[in-house]
Amino acid sequence: MAVIVQVDFPYAGPFDQRMTEQMSDLAASINDEPGMLWKVWTINEQTKEAGGVYLFDNQANAEAYLAMHSARLRQMGVEGITGKVFHINEALTAINQGPVNPA
Amino acid sequence: MAVIVQVDFPYAGPFDQRMTEQMSDLAASINDEPGMLWKVWTINEQTKEAGGVYLFDNQANAEAYLAMHSARLRQMGVEGITGKVFHINEALTAINQGPVNPA
Repeated sequence: MAVIVQVDFPYAGPFDQRMTEQMSDLAASINDEPGMLWKVWTINEQTKEAGGVYLFDNQANAEAYLAMHSARLRQMGVEGITGKVFHINEALTAINQGPVNPA
Repeated sequence: MAVIVQVDFPYAGPFDQRMTEQMSDLAASINDEPGMLWKVWTINEQTKEAGGVYLFDNQANAEAYLAMHSARLRQMGVEGITGKVFHINEALTAINQGPVNPA
């Protein structure tokens, strides 16, 4: 059953085009992570935060990714990471058009 | 430009079928909120949390919803609500198949 991974952390920038250039290779590599179905890249220029919301195919893959990604962020000097894995109430999500079905 | 709303809070249950029954009318009403494009209903039986990840059409609608929803949760006795609105890096999200385009 698919699960959501929710990650956010303090991030001073860059945002927009320079962020895209710096992170494009990382984004491509995320497509190769086991069970990764999609990621939305989240940013908040005002609160200076960034992160992502991901759909993974199951909890084991989600937790493995979250552990690896959190360690990678800490190695880049990022502190204050919030990372959560959630199950999905699929019946309620279906009422609200939530995109949780693998294509 | 579409934005993500991320909400989570302590939630003791019920989960699964009874949750679905209790919340179906609320879910249907969420479809009528201005600018709401989709919601994934998130639950964690172990950490006793629940919440949602939403896509809204713009920041003003997202912030209005978050303010209304947080007040509604507090009125239901929920405390410790984390609610965040994020912009989206659309170029990176496109690399990772993020479902952020209105149908």
